[in-house]
Amino acid sequence: MADFLTKRSTDYSQWYTDVVLKAELADYSPVKGCMVIRPYGYAIWENMQAILNKKFKETGHQNAYFPLFIPKSFLEKEAEHVEGFAPETAVVTHGGGKELDEPLIVRPTSETIMYAMYSKWIRSYRDLPVLINQWANIVRWEMRTRLFLRTTEFLWQEGHTVHATYDEAQEETLKILSIYKNFAEQYLAIPVIQGKKSDAERFAGAFYTYAIEAMMGDKKALQAGTSHNLGQKFAKAFDVKFQDQNGQWQFAWQTSWGVSTRLIGALIMVHGDDNGLFFPPLIAPIQIVIVPIWQTDQQKNDTLTLANTLKNEILKEFIVHIDNREQITPGFKFNEWEMKGVPIRLELGPKDLAQNQVTIATRFKDKKSPCPLDNLKTTIETLVVNIQKALFERAKNFMKENTFTVDNYKDFLAANEKHGGFFLVHWCGKTQCEETIKTESKATIRCIPLDTVPEKGKCIVCSEASNERVLVAKAY
Amino acid sequence: MADFLTKRSTDYSQWYTDVVLKAELADYSPVKGCMVIRPYGYAIWENMQAILNKKFKETGHQNAYFPLFIPKSFLEKEAEHVEGFAPETAVVTHGGGKELDEPLIVRPTSETIMYAMYSKWIRSYRDLPVLINQWANIVRWEMRTRLFLRTTEFLWQEGHTVHATYDEAQEETLKILSIYKNFAEQYLAIPVIQGKKSDAERFAGAFYTYAIEAMMGDKKALQAGTSHNLGQKFAKAFDVKFQDQNGQWQFAWQTSWGVSTRLIGALIMVHGDDNGLFFPPLIAPIQIVIVPIWQTDQQKNDTLTLANTLKNEILKEFIVHIDNREQITPGFKFNEWEMKGVPIRLELGPKDLAQNQVTIATRFKDKKSPCPLDNLKTTIETLVVNIQKALFERAKNFMKENTFTVDNYKDFLAANEKHGGFFLVHWCGKTQCEETIKTESKATIRCIPLDTVPEKGKCIVCSEASNERVLVAKAY
Repeated sequence: MADFLTKRSTDYSQWYTDVVLKAELADYSPVKGCMVIRPYGYAIWENMQAILNKKFKETGHQNAYFPLFIPKSFLEKEAEHVEGFAPETAVVTHGGGKELDEPLIVRPTSETIMYAMYSKWIRSYRDLPVLINQWANIVRWEMRTRLFLRTTEFLWQEGHTVHATYDEAQEETLKILSIYKNFAEQYLAIPVIQGKKSDAERFAGAFYTYAIEAMMGDKKALQAGTSHNLGQKFAKAFDVKFQDQNGQWQFAWQTSWGVSTRLIGALIMVHGDDNGLFFPPLIAPIQIVIVPIWQTDQQKNDTLTLANTLKNEILKEFIVHIDNREQITPGFKFNEWEMKGVPIRLELGPKDLAQNQVTIATRFKDKKSPCPLDNLKTTIETLVVNIQKALFERAKNFMKENTFTVDNYKDFLAANEKHGGFFLVHWCGKTQCEETIKTESKATIRCIPLDTVPEKGKCIVCSEASNERVLVAKAY
Repeated sequence: MADFLTKRSTDYSQWYTDVVLKAELADYSPVKGCMVIRPYGYAIWENMQAILNKKFKETGHQNAYFPLFIPKSFLEKEAEHVEGFAPETAVVTHGGGKELDEPLIVRPTSETIMYAMYSKWIRSYRDLPVLINQWANIVRWEMRTRLFLRTTEFLWQEGHTVHATYDEAQEETLKILSIYKNFAEQYLAIPVIQGKKSDAERFAGAFYTYAIEAMMGDKKALQAGTSHNLGQKFAKAFDVKFQDQNGQWQFAWQTSWGVSTRLIGALIMVHGDDNGLFFPPLIAPIQIVIVPIWQTDQQKNDTLTLANTLKNEILKEFIVHIDNREQITPGFKFNEWEMKGVPIRLELGPKDLAQNQVTIATRFKDKKSPCPLDNLKTTIETLVVNIQKALFERAKNFMKENTFTVDNYKDFLAANEKHGGFFLVHWCGKTQCEETIKTESKATIRCIPLDTVPEKGKCIVCSEASNERVLVAKAY
């Protein structure tokens, strides 16, 4: 089955496209740069939504929905913001058969339309905090697109909160960053590095941008989520004000934050191998596939009956799929589900039935083992925990093995060129040195890690004093 | 509180807008015709999504996501379809700073983009049925908009299925219609009439269109959901074909179906009264509001503690909100939550605490009653069932009382003018008579009810023979 997948070592990028298409996660659409998310891929997004919604709601956030269209003049109200987004917008110029007086931008992000409403709704400190999240489609005109990683239209959630003080906004910004980190590590089994972005990499209009960065299978970095402390920039542009307890009008403090369908791309690249996908059980669209094996009609009847009992009763708390397709061999099915990344496979043959057992195989391709039906539920529960943990540990070790502390610029350039990975280097903080690194190595300063230990050193480029190391890597 | 709401008898339309805005279900946006769905309104949509997703998945459907943009040429492939939708589209002419070679339509519905993909994916009868649903935003350029009922952008689900035979497609069309009917009646407490649309009211490109029609508080009809048997029209336009068991290529049979955020408008109009909204418990964004009443700090502490115990333990299976706002009187809170349509209110005063009870009030404004804490859970469970049922019965009676069987055209015109309502009349089936009714009465043939009893009669307009009555009413 995996014969038709390009090997990762041959062409990582082609391997990625191969698995996305063959596993039917997504497909190219007739509209340039837009993708179709097929049911198997969309189920992952639904799982992500369910987990994040729970976390957002537990922390007091509410969902809402704001318009797709943004008047062009709104985007222009915050200077940095328009500079950042205007070049990549899709513009509606005609509606209902007529040319519009003012063109409408298809939202590339919703700060401007949401804050125009916030300005109307917020009057008093009693109205704060506003803690709103939106699940929506977003359009950014991209020239070079990759399924899930960079598409003209993508799906995301964007949180937009308003607070009475800077401290509260900063606390919210970091609280969300920490929700993202836990989500990535506990559910996606993707270890991430939390950090602050350099000024050059800040979100257009933000005061501070924080992000979680993950290492993909080709050792490149992927920004997996961002959380912005917007300060008062947008509040001033959109007149988001409140009367404080003394009756004084104050500009509010804001945050925004988001993760998108590109996380599905991260899942593929962190856990996939030359045999295809490997989904961590806690996010998998299918956790367990049951392959009944039969030759006679009686065997077919018996194995399908047991398969249904497993799905609807014994294993009902799991996401189970029964592959009952005719005219396809069990071996073909095994390979297909392996390629599609289902973490646990149960084989149900006549011999298993006779012995009141099932045969368990995991996506790790370790030795298959029989399991008596009586123990099945607890065995699977343990397996889910263990596979989840093993995937996380494997990814963590991979990141650790491929993260290098370097102090000499030439060594950095050579290592980055030769084997790539994450590099922890000293940087003076100047945009000029950041630019030099970017130009000469194609790697960028991903972030200033939050858990960095203060350490005296010299900027790897200009040798000026530095107090901490930053994370540098080539990135998606 | 309800003083600032226009009375329904004074101006029903203004009453509607008043409650939507004051209850913070939605707001007007700076973009003409687009609305902002605020958290309290969006929570209803989330509840609807959860219930429908469960029903769709139980019947084998899967969710997916297709592009927002549709190439203009796609819309033009099915002749009736483009005629129906082209005049109300929003058109993207520029992307990434350049004029596009081919303009893109912001989806007014997704048949064309989805079926282009189906054509690529479907090869064999083994690939059928395809049972895909999509939750998405939709844009139709509307001149006269009403919050939830008719907006330029709205949210909906659209199911699009593909089958090997006409019979299967027809079975699916009616299965979904029945899911919609049960959803409306059991969850929204809105009685509906299932029926087939006349040719003039068919969906642009459909073979048959079925709908559920509901009666609003002003006796006008609202189409609350549609299910289309598309026949092979789109299959032929988009080349959706499969090889049957004999290896012969056949065009497929298709269906599409949807409900939208306009259902929130229906909920408002069916159950609301001059005091505001009234949400059926099974769809309410908040099922129970707890209003703690205190004067001393000790009382505040005690009532809030109990309120939290109720919310997090005793009533944890319900959607409970504690109104702990300071500086607002309990009376003000009672009125506000009444206006916001919360079906059950629990009052928690010092006297209640002393007697280990709470005081229960329902949105029906019947007599308040004390309830010992020990019985609270079961009492609430019963109340939820009873309120749900009472709202449905009330709406059903209202529809019944305002549905008239009429055989004389002048009587119909007079009654429709004088008091409105639903009219069951004989119709010959000709578009000309349908047009006459529409022009002279402003009412339209809503549907040919499915449960109609065959009955010989004469068309109310032309007196030609008719075998069944159709439903005529003014509509939203």
